[in-house]
Amino acid sequence: MNIKAVLNTLGKILQVEAGLMLLPLIVALIYREDPIPFLITIGLLIVIGTLLTAVLHKGDHLIFEREGFLIVALSWVIMSVFGALPFVISGAIPSFVDAFFETVSGFTTTGSTILTDFSVIDKSLLFWRSFTHWIGGMGVLVFIMALLPMTNSRSVHILKAETTGPTKGGKLVPKMRSTATILYIIYLALTVIEVILLLFGGMTLFEALTYSFATAGTGGYGITAAGVAGFNSPYINIVISVFMLLFGVNFNLYYLVLLGNWRSFFKNEENRWYFAIVGISTLFIAFNILNLFGNFAESLMHSFFQVASIITTTGFATADFALWPTASQFLLVLLMLIGASAGSTGGAIKVSRIIILLKSIRRSIHKMIRPNQVEVVRLNGSPLDEETVSTTHTFFSLYMLILFGSGLLVCLDGFDFTTSFTATVACLCNVGPGLGLVGPMGSFAIFSAPVKLLLSLLMLLGRLELFSIVMLFFPEAWRRR
Amino acid sequence: MNIKAVLNTLGKILQVEAGLMLLPLIVALIYREDPIPFLITIGLLIVIGTLLTAVLHKGDHLIFEREGFLIVALSWVIMSVFGALPFVISGAIPSFVDAFFETVSGFTTTGSTILTDFSVIDKSLLFWRSFTHWIGGMGVLVFIMALLPMTNSRSVHILKAETTGPTKGGKLVPKMRSTATILYIIYLALTVIEVILLLFGGMTLFEALTYSFATAGTGGYGITAAGVAGFNSPYINIVISVFMLLFGVNFNLYYLVLLGNWRSFFKNEENRWYFAIVGISTLFIAFNILNLFGNFAESLMHSFFQVASIITTTGFATADFALWPTASQFLLVLLMLIGASAGSTGGAIKVSRIIILLKSIRRSIHKMIRPNQVEVVRLNGSPLDEETVSTTHTFFSLYMLILFGSGLLVCLDGFDFTTSFTATVACLCNVGPGLGLVGPMGSFAIFSAPVKLLLSLLMLLGRLELFSIVMLFFPEAWRRR
Repeated sequence: MNIKAVLNTLGKILQVEAGLMLLPLIVALIYREDPIPFLITIGLLIVIGTLLTAVLHKGDHLIFEREGFLIVALSWVIMSVFGALPFVISGAIPSFVDAFFETVSGFTTTGSTILTDFSVIDKSLLFWRSFTHWIGGMGVLVFIMALLPMTNSRSVHILKAETTGPTKGGKLVPKMRSTATILYIIYLALTVIEVILLLFGGMTLFEALTYSFATAGTGGYGITAAGVAGFNSPYINIVISVFMLLFGVNFNLYYLVLLGNWRSFFKNEENRWYFAIVGISTLFIAFNILNLFGNFAESLMHSFFQVASIITTTGFATADFALWPTASQFLLVLLMLIGASAGSTGGAIKVSRIIILLKSIRRSIHKMIRPNQVEVVRLNGSPLDEETVSTTHTFFSLYMLILFGSGLLVCLDGFDFTTSFTATVACLCNVGPGLGLVGPMGSFAIFSAPVKLLLSLLMLLGRLELFSIVMLFFPEAWRRR
Repeated sequence: MNIKAVLNTLGKILQVEAGLMLLPLIVALIYREDPIPFLITIGLLIVIGTLLTAVLHKGDHLIFEREGFLIVALSWVIMSVFGALPFVISGAIPSFVDAFFETVSGFTTTGSTILTDFSVIDKSLLFWRSFTHWIGGMGVLVFIMALLPMTNSRSVHILKAETTGPTKGGKLVPKMRSTATILYIIYLALTVIEVILLLFGGMTLFEALTYSFATAGTGGYGITAAGVAGFNSPYINIVISVFMLLFGVNFNLYYLVLLGNWRSFFKNEENRWYFAIVGISTLFIAFNILNLFGNFAESLMHSFFQVASIITTTGFATADFALWPTASQFLLVLLMLIGASAGSTGGAIKVSRIIILLKSIRRSIHKMIRPNQVEVVRLNGSPLDEETVSTTHTFFSLYMLILFGSGLLVCLDGFDFTTSFTATVACLCNVGPGLGLVGPMGSFAIFSAPVKLLLSLLMLLGRLELFSIVMLFFPEAWRRR
């Protein structure tokens, strides 16, 4: 472990977080709210960040895959610790564990909340809470790479560890910094378009900004207890549905579209599966909930919104799906696990991994039928190397083992099976709401402090796709080379 | 597909089933019950069996892995179809779908039942129902190989397809027939010992036989609605607990013990994990349910019985665990999924596969920490070949996909999440009872006919470890070479 390189990068991250926190500070000044919580936190971030960056590291040969993973894992933990401070200092969320849970839930774009009464929270704090979704959606370190000239040309390992999906890394353009910048520009542009469309729907600028942050990061925080349902506007529902889906698409495809290559958007295998799953699930649920809403148009709208919200792991709700028929609920849990596309801001297993698993299983059975036949697994027509296939299986097995293992611990709080299991799924998959007591109208405040910390860990595991966080528990990862 | 070889073997299986059905026929004669249902079925089995064996096949080069899989899959389906006839003909279970479900549940040693009123069922039928567990436990084709001189020296592929666990096949002794015979002798001996011990506990011979059949096959059918709980005897509870655990051990280890190699029993890695999981789970649940029973001895006895019953996928119950705290219930569901040892009569994923998955995951993380390090996955100190590791991952992924996919369809019957999900787990893992409405005091009669057929399919998938049954849905498997 190159500890100097890690500390140096962590210092930069804290400095950047200080910069990002200027936005909620401005919001506090506009609304004449108490700026002290943000001022104290920003001060701490600058001091500690500067001290850490003073740890110099030289040479670009010192960051390898392992350091990339560790830097990313530690960054997310430390950012959440400091990101929680404004909530604690202001007294809005007095318990540090609760504030940490809420901030991890924000950065990891989960959207599970311990809040029950939104009216007592300052707007600047609500702004910061939603803004964490936007920061976490694309990735903090990707942001830093877009912003700062990284001395380290091997920062590819950091980008790898933070972006999502089975086939990682910037194949877009050879230079990491350009890739990160392009991704952020697309991200920013889509967010701005959504803000404008939501303003047309009658939202205030504050509402349009916070809901767009939560959509873009596929996070799901609202700023009232009712959330999106509170607007009761089909226009807003549809705008948000469409944008949730758009943020669940692999961002590389948008870059190709910008280059004029529209074909790739429609020909991409993961994208076709993604939209097919959305289409089929929407119809399935629309028919399943038909008698709850009376007419097909309304049940279709709610179904479409919910499917888009859940598969992208956003977690907004226009209706209390915890009251829907079991089959619809079960399908939503499956969609939670499937998740959005690789290279999007969405969480969970990702559609492309599901495709690879299915194709690899089919290949295994073909091999049993004809043992001498050699077959490769293809994605988008190109053969995948065996390491990608086997890593995908390892990822899936580890995902399930973590899900079931931590589900047991969550059960120790004594809530019913459905609540405990879906709370675990919703946090690991970065969705937000589950079923039962943690349904869209429920709250995670019911859990004990140890379970809240466990769920925070699950959110980090989910967002960083397991390996970076799991590695923290391996002593070998900490050893010097 | 060598269709002749398949039909010929199926004919032999029907003839053997006719022979096995002589036992319940004798029971019918002893208790002066109606023998007609058995006589008709036996007649049909002999006629159809003899017609099929008339399809001759020559040469031993015609049975390959593929034919092995198909023979096993088709045998189990056709045996269940004929095995269901006595229930239908007698009118005890008028619906064929119900009788088929009950028989598949018997042969696959699942033990899920659609019965609610046991008093109206003839003893001979109850005997047949419990006897199917004993037949299915060790495997029908293994039985045939032990009994009949198979002309085909490549019948190793049949044995492979029917025995359980990740590393298949008879490494015990070179000749398949000897292996099968040894396994059946051990199986028979253990069963006889249990019968004697249960007779000492005050059971009638009929009770001792049926409960021993259900224990030996890790099936779980009782002959009253109360089942084992009805005896209310700590002695019987403990005898059955211990024998359930013994039947969950890899039978190869008993063979080694018979050869005087006691060490291998205690040194075997899977066995150590198996007993460690049983020990830890028993303590966990004993403390978790302490306040339900008042004293530790009683909660420990119920916990031990239930853990032994569930991890071996037997499914007996001495208490209604559907009323236990959520953490205990969740742990029982995890034990359902883990299952017993490879090469035992128990179902589910198997302890050795879990070990392989965990070690392979650990290796992947080691590889991320030190990319140049080469590491093999070991079981019992010997390196596993990469194909076994990757097949284990494929098996696990397929298991989970089948579990979640069919869970959705089971939900269409409209029962709650817990009932639907655990019914799916309980059938796929060949356990028997689940939670909620299908808990140990519940019944699978609540489900619709299509869901009962789906659950029957899951039981077959679970017992035959997926691939044989999945292959039936691949057109390539049916093609001629």
